Amino acid sequence: MVFLNGEFLPQKDAKISTLDRGFLFGDGVYEVIPVYNQNIFKLTEHLNRLDGSLRATKIKNPFTGNEYKNILTKLLKNNFAKNQTIYLQITRGVGESRSHNFKNLTPTIYIRVDELKIRNKNELVCGFKAIITKDIRWNNCYIKSTSLLTNVLYVEMAQANLVEEIILEKNGIITEGASSNVFILSKNTIKTPKINGEILAGITREMVIKSAIATNLEVKECDIKTSDLMDADEVWISSSTREVMPISQIGDKTFSSGGEVWQQVYNHFQTLKSE
Amino acid sequence: MVFLNGEFLPQKDAKISTLDRGFLFGDGVYEVIPVYNQNIFKLTEHLNRLDGSLRATKIKNPFTGNEYKNILTKLLKNNFAKNQTIYLQITRGVGESRSHNFKNLTPTIYIRVDELKIRNKNELVCGFKAIITKDIRWNNCYIKSTSLLTNVLYVEMAQANLVEEIILEKNGIITEGASSNVFILSKNTIKTPKINGEILAGITREMVIKSAIATNLEVKECDIKTSDLMDADEVWISSSTREVMPISQIGDKTFSSGGEVWQQVYNHFQTLKSE
Repeated sequence: MVFLNGEFLPQKDAKISTLDRGFLFGDGVYEVIPVYNQNIFKLTEHLNRLDGSLRATKIKNPFTGNEYKNILTKLLKNNFAKNQTIYLQITRGVGESRSHNFKNLTPTIYIRVDELKIRNKNELVCGFKAIITKDIRWNNCYIKSTSLLTNVLYVEMAQANLVEEIILEKNGIITEGASSNVFILSKNTIKTPKINGEILAGITREMVIKSAIATNLEVKECDIKTSDLMDADEVWISSSTREVMPISQIGDKTFSSGGEVWQQVYNHFQTLKSE
Repeated sequence: MVFLNGEFLPQKDAKISTLDRGFLFGDGVYEVIPVYNQNIFKLTEHLNRLDGSLRATKIKNPFTGNEYKNILTKLLKNNFAKNQTIYLQITRGVGESRSHNFKNLTPTIYIRVDELKIRNKNELVCGFKAIITKDIRWNNCYIKSTSLLTNVLYVEMAQANLVEEIILEKNGIITEGASSNVFILSKNTIKTPKINGEILAGITREMVIKSAIATNLEVKECDIKTSDLMDADEVWISSSTREVMPISQIGDKTFSSGGEVWQQVYNHFQTLKSE
């Protein structure tokens, strides 16, 4: 069962007009929210970020926090996996034709729930491969928009190169992963790119920072040159489905992974999931 | 009547799954093709450009040129406007869930026809307003992709500023308009940004170049600095719906519009429409 514009219905019946601006223009925003043991994780933070994306794109937020909560609770009751992931998309709505005019439309709201498959600690310790490539995305990646073709092409690149993630650089500075935030560990200091309009303020990123501080690491949000990353002791990426994942190889260069520092941060991270 | 995945049906019945990757990821490409007096304009060129966009995004082209032609002919028979505009969109298709995996899907094809409203010469001569802003789009604008949120935001900016078009600059160099190509006239030479991966190879742009050459103007495809544009004698923009349109004001600066040189190019342009 999914939610579409006020109705709960089977996925096979969830259809939208070809004139929906989400379909014609990628004119929408979304959130992905993890659910651990039927507990929606940081719902307020995710709804706040959603509201920020809607404001930036001038799409009206159709629901209050409580209305979202009621819909999500009903959807989650019909899904029995231990951990789940909520996908929530809002588009500007259905126009009368493929016109660029878009005033006063009724937003389209689509929500679905899937099982969240999280890799366990044993699967993470050995680390995963990545490659670095040029960040060619638009400049406003702080907006979580459905105009995601660049990301689709990065996923294709990752699959073709048999790597887990594509790490992006712009003018020699690391921005983020194609669907993750990036951290480096250098001499017991954790560094991660500072939040600006060009990267997403990851909610998992915040948890990793919190976990690193809790384990007495120094954390710096600062510019990271590509060369800093390649010279780092360790590289990690974070996202709601990957949590905090060690990167063991970038191109030909190998990195230490799953060491004591990472284990401490990972362990503390787990305790935050029941917050 | 519109065309959707092999069927001709009323627009109100043209529905797609919410799992269509065009809706979830802006994972599709499109073309807009003018039709003058029931004559499809430069169909081969448009289909070639479509094929280029499909290759760049690794989406399979579902039809041959003749198959497209047959579908378009049938659609056009049901529309009686003098001039028409074909909108043709292809997405990667419907996935099983919102997964980034996308191998071996069947592309979604949606085509609709609307009346093409072209401004006549009298409406054009006085010129239109524009403003210049930073080009924040992704780097591969040669692909005509449906991930168009940036363009939607530029349209909103144009409406808020009561201007016809937003002209884009990157690092002090003009790229193109939000939905047009840009030309300047300086001392009887026409200049337009040269085609590279960051701008669309407009088919109307080619016609304007051809018309300018036919009327004995020198044409240079080269970098145009923002200051060159502001110092130009005239500024024009081109697109299939605007043809060749004079810009009479950018910010506070006014420009001459509708003069003899523009009239010659405009007149020659009209003769190319029956090619």
